[in-house]
Amino acid sequence: MSSNKIPVGILGATGSVGQKFIELLSDHPWFEITEVAASERSSGKKYKDAVNWILSSAIPEKIKELEVKDCEANLNCNIVFSGLDSSVAGPIEEAFAKKGYKVVSNSKNHRMDQNVPLLVPEINPDHLELVKTQNFSGGCIVTNPNCSTIGLVIGLKPLLDNFGLEEVNVVTMQALSGAGYPGVASLDTIDNVIPYIPSEEDKLETEPLKIFGKLDSDKIQSNEVKISAQCNRVSVLNGHTECVQVKFKNKPSKKEIIHAWRNFSAEPQKLNLHMAPMNTIYYLEEEKYPQPRIHRNLDKGMAVSIGRLREDPLFDYKFVALSHNTNRGAAGGAILCGELMISKGYIK
Amino acid sequence: MSSNKIPVGILGATGSVGQKFIELLSDHPWFEITEVAASERSSGKKYKDAVNWILSSAIPEKIKELEVKDCEANLNCNIVFSGLDSSVAGPIEEAFAKKGYKVVSNSKNHRMDQNVPLLVPEINPDHLELVKTQNFSGGCIVTNPNCSTIGLVIGLKPLLDNFGLEEVNVVTMQALSGAGYPGVASLDTIDNVIPYIPSEEDKLETEPLKIFGKLDSDKIQSNEVKISAQCNRVSVLNGHTECVQVKFKNKPSKKEIIHAWRNFSAEPQKLNLHMAPMNTIYYLEEEKYPQPRIHRNLDKGMAVSIGRLREDPLFDYKFVALSHNTNRGAAGGAILCGELMISKGYIK
Amino acid sequence: MSSNKIPVGILGATGSVGQKFIELLSDHPWFEITEVAASERSSGKKYKDAVNWILSSAIPEKIKELEVKDCEANLNCNIVFSGLDSSVAGPIEEAFAKKGYKVVSNSKNHRMDQNVPLLVPEINPDHLELVKTQNFSGGCIVTNPNCSTIGLVIGLKPLLDNFGLEEVNVVTMQALSGAGYPGVASLDTIDNVIPYIPSEEDKLETEPLKIFGKLDSDKIQSNEVKISAQCNRVSVLNGHTECVQVKFKNKPSKKEIIHAWRNFSAEPQKLNLHMAPMNTIYYLEEEKYPQPRIHRNLDKGMAVSIGRLREDPLFDYKFVALSHNTNRGAAGGAILCGELMISKGYIK
Amino acid sequence: MSSNKIPVGILGATGSVGQKFIELLSDHPWFEITEVAASERSSGKKYKDAVNWILSSAIPEKIKELEVKDCEANLNCNIVFSGLDSSVAGPIEEAFAKKGYKVVSNSKNHRMDQNVPLLVPEINPDHLELVKTQNFSGGCIVTNPNCSTIGLVIGLKPLLDNFGLEEVNVVTMQALSGAGYPGVASLDTIDNVIPYIPSEEDKLETEPLKIFGKLDSDKIQSNEVKISAQCNRVSVLNGHTECVQVKFKNKPSKKEIIHAWRNFSAEPQKLNLHMAPMNTIYYLEEEKYPQPRIHRNLDKGMAVSIGRLREDPLFDYKFVALSHNTNRGAAGGAILCGELMISKGYIK
Repeated sequence: MSSNKIPVGILGATGSVGQKFIELLSDHPWFEITEVAASERSSGKKYKDAVNWILSSAIPEKIKELEVKDCEANLNCNIVFSGLDSSVAGPIEEAFAKKGYKVVSNSKNHRMDQNVPLLVPEINPDHLELVKTQNFSGGCIVTNPNCSTIGLVIGLKPLLDNFGLEEVNVVTMQALSGAGYPGVASLDTIDNVIPYIPSEEDKLETEPLKIFGKLDSDKIQSNEVKISAQCNRVSVLNGHTECVQVKFKNKPSKKEIIHAWRNFSAEPQKLNLHMAPMNTIYYLEEEKYPQPRIHRNLDKGMAVSIGRLREDPLFDYKFVALSHNTNRGAAGGAILCGELMISKGYIK
Repeated sequence: MSSNKIPVGILGATGSVGQKFIELLSDHPWFEITEVAASERSSGKKYKDAVNWILSSAIPEKIKELEVKDCEANLNCNIVFSGLDSSVAGPIEEAFAKKGYKVVSNSKNHRMDQNVPLLVPEINPDHLELVKTQNFSGGCIVTNPNCSTIGLVIGLKPLLDNFGLEEVNVVTMQALSGAGYPGVASLDTIDNVIPYIPSEEDKLETEPLKIFGKLDSDKIQSNEVKISAQCNRVSVLNGHTECVQVKFKNKPSKKEIIHAWRNFSAEPQKLNLHMAPMNTIYYLEEEKYPQPRIHRNLDKGMAVSIGRLREDPLFDYKFVALSHNTNRGAAGGAILCGELMISKGYIK
Repeated sequence: MSSNKIPVGILGATGSVGQKFIELLSDHPWFEITEVAASERSSGKKYKDAVNWILSSAIPEKIKELEVKDCEANLNCNIVFSGLDSSVAGPIEEAFAKKGYKVVSNSKNHRMDQNVPLLVPEINPDHLELVKTQNFSGGCIVTNPNCSTIGLVIGLKPLLDNFGLEEVNVVTMQALSGAGYPGVASLDTIDNVIPYIPSEEDKLETEPLKIFGKLDSDKIQSNEVKISAQCNRVSVLNGHTECVQVKFKNKPSKKEIIHAWRNFSAEPQKLNLHMAPMNTIYYLEEEKYPQPRIHRNLDKGMAVSIGRLREDPLFDYKFVALSHNTNRGAAGGAILCGELMISKGYIK
Repeated sequence: MSSNKIPVGILGATGSVGQKFIELLSDHPWFEITEVAASERSSGKKYKDAVNWILSSAIPEKIKELEVKDCEANLNCNIVFSGLDSSVAGPIEEAFAKKGYKVVSNSKNHRMDQNVPLLVPEINPDHLELVKTQNFSGGCIVTNPNCSTIGLVIGLKPLLDNFGLEEVNVVTMQALSGAGYPGVASLDTIDNVIPYIPSEEDKLETEPLKIFGKLDSDKIQSNEVKISAQCNRVSVLNGHTECVQVKFKNKPSKKEIIHAWRNFSAEPQKLNLHMAPMNTIYYLEEEKYPQPRIHRNLDKGMAVSIGRLREDPLFDYKFVALSHNTNRGAAGGAILCGELMISKGYIK
């Protein structure tokens, strides 16, 4: 390697999340992709021949000719970003951690493990300390939340901190890319809505409780906000839109809420992490906003756009939140976790 | 006219709701379209030359050559179905009523008038009596609810009757045809969601209270269920999908709810009205149902499809309801009102 | 069986073409579905449990409970309609023919076999005689053309007969349903065009030559019109749109062409076959027509809609043709073949 | 103005092409937007309040607060880029030229004027000389071709130069954004194709003849290649896809054609113009490419992607070409013209 960058490997490199990792890391100032690994079917091929590239950016030149390796824990890198399918991710990620690799995973398998941080750098950077309780010799596993969780918890964080939250109700309209590739059949999405995404509602009702939890010596005390989620698939390429209702411990004014969102700045901004959005949250005044096609790419697709805050007859307030599900909600969010780990000395 | 059918006129005949009236009435056993009326721009032309037909059925042969008239109250018919734009509907419909026409309107203008029934034949057929309090010499105005209201109130009716309702929360994903033609720009809907429909949430929060109201001598006592609504436009041609949460007065079992839906049968079925769906409500067992493209046309697009009933952490239950917004939610619903009026002797 | 109808079986009954067969045959006056057969994965289950029904009509009640059988040639019926995937259709269809079944297939496998009719009842009903040359004891195989071929050849037939054709150039914009289910990934079709459909252009350049061929005692002399085809997949549910250019042997006037289309009537109309469209071809005057969503369902989805006839600087004329790919272009076309076989005495 | 950049005004600044001009010029090294002008309805307002911004990038900060002016020829700038609607563009552009402004227009009004260059910097940079024959005191008008023309002529240029062209046949599948905003109704494009775009085919058949023409002292001798065009609107946001067939004067091999495309480099690359694509043409090997969603953004949306070159039974070859209709085909192409004018000394 010709640089001082940290060598990284991508697990599940040919999948849709894997491609996003490659796109976002292609010009990264701290990381350099040295290894791409995928299933047996791809291994041994050049990356450009193994992948069915579905992004609208071109495959980075330096990745095209890399040989795809097996997902065996003998890759030439310090850190691996995992976009593996959850059907195989669990044991592979563990094997890597045991061999001393820092594993940052976008898969669900280890998210709820007691000693694995479910990390959102703007929300719970202190949870990183949990890795010290992991029994891997030098390696570790850190996870990124589900793509529908991330927009919600970021939108809620300043509200939780400033006013306290009792109840959260959320109905999602989620993008097709959230299901990977080939994912959802076009016959199911043209002129249609699918009001069901397997196991998604459960994730959205439980992951925030861990993310908002308090680190108490070596374990997380779950937060106790009550959440109800309903998840729908709509005909959108990227960007999950969420209709959110909240009941506060101390009901603030509309103005106070907007102020809390607009002034929300956290660890990634302070540490000047590369993938950190300039503003983690944008509050948009126009009644018809946010919209996925218009706002999903704000700040490299890492910002959460919020709009339509208004009083609610059943809860206190309702609003609409939007975030990019494969940038903020998957690869971009995981890279931000990796950057935090460097910045905090967990990766050298 | 060569038949014993009741002659009807269509106001706003070239618009999208007007076209739906024409499609649904083309083979109707009780009604025969004798007049089509529209704005000045169209009047004097043959219908086929005035209309930009957007339905996938062909224009009925006998309508093609009809001359489009002005919306003046001198049409050769007893009853008019109005699909007029709300910017003009109010005074025109009144003018017709004053001249003795029975006006069945799909426009919002008179819906909340104190002496105008907001009629859903399965729910409040008794509200028809309100027309007796109208000051029109022989004429009257009857209205049909908003296209997003109808699926909701039908789904709720058996629950209200059997178990009592305290709170209702609804988030809609509404079809493009609900905005008429040209309506929503394609640049706004491709790869997008619009989380805002002007004044729609207000209708959805207030119309049900009148529909579920009690007729008390000559006025309606509003129902007191509390409703919160959030409305979104998605890329679907026809069919509004609604995520609904309910809190009951007396919480039933899941089984009892499904039983109430499946056994719901009402006035239109008893009276054997032509447009009445065989089953007003279908409860679908498959977790991924209902879907607009698959289920919107059930029973001539007049049935409401419901699925995914499950317990809710904040309310008692949540479920998904779907109904065809231009059939059940507009022209078809209005025709059913007309049929009820015949059956009850309000039209002869 | 409670009727005098001819018992039929559906091969590949759970697939997308199989479902269309079931939908179109559910009220058929001559045929009654007695058997549904599919792959091992489905066999033994009730149809409603085996199928992932994707049509907007409901599953016919009497089919729901049928047990799905293996595709073994021991079904209780006289005729089988095959919607089998081409990866398996060849030998299965042969096995059925050998056991005496009349096989009407929508699969490509036997289409170009020398003694198998590639049948379009409006065009080459005499080709049915080819089955007499087949070596099956009582059974036979008859095929239906590819879904993009059928609209083209029907549009060309009156031109060929009246004016002679030298060259045909066609560019298609084909519907998603043409690829079956799950078929095309939604990530490939949202906000996109795929300018390639494997082996489709070859079918479109060769099948018409056989269909337009002359039956010469026991074989088909291929027609010699020169055809060039380019095939694209667009985001449309049903209905293939084709931009066609033609060079004639004797160049007619625009008026003569339209007259030839509008007066085209053939065997299925004369024999009054059930699935026969009232008009096989509709010529539409409006410049913006035909459009798939508006015109694909004309005459039960069995008619071909044509519009925009105009002079061409390179060929003689150009025009746009549209036909429903799963009705006319698959199951409906195959059923029409079956009806012709009954009418001509090939099935009793 | 705080820079040495050339001050430019945008005519039609609130429209869809105007927005694209603003997006692409926001960081331009040579130009700085000092004026935004639009119709009376907008003038006097701040840009951010006048515009219905439809792009997925944010409105540039420095433009938001600019006051929208009338389209009167008294703007504070040297050059105006016009994205005016063709219903008003003609006389306004002339008025600006007469007052000494350099007008670079994307509107069709003056494209075919004898002394107005129809400019594609890669193809006919010498046509710029035509402005010397214009009777404007210091001002001039230069035009950019239609958005469907540009991809075609760029793809053809290396073929014309190397092998000579006799006939060109093209069928387009054009993006929604080509019709501006609100443009095409969503009800017309969901699950649909519109096989007609008013006056588009005529532009595509005539503009290339002028672009490929020879400048002969003070006028253009039209090229004599014969072109036939068929134009369709499909459900794609950006990017026109074109199926092209060509007949050569001297038929080359497939290899020679691909070589000609890949080695095509022209004036903008030599002059190192800012908006010049790195490669004007990309030839893609994968059979399923080019696709609008994947390739339209190559090289800032200024490159033309070509694929699927194959022999044709009627012409010599066929292939698929794709270009971004609002970048390369509108604002981006016009800016490139402006850059060429600077580089050649026409603007100082």
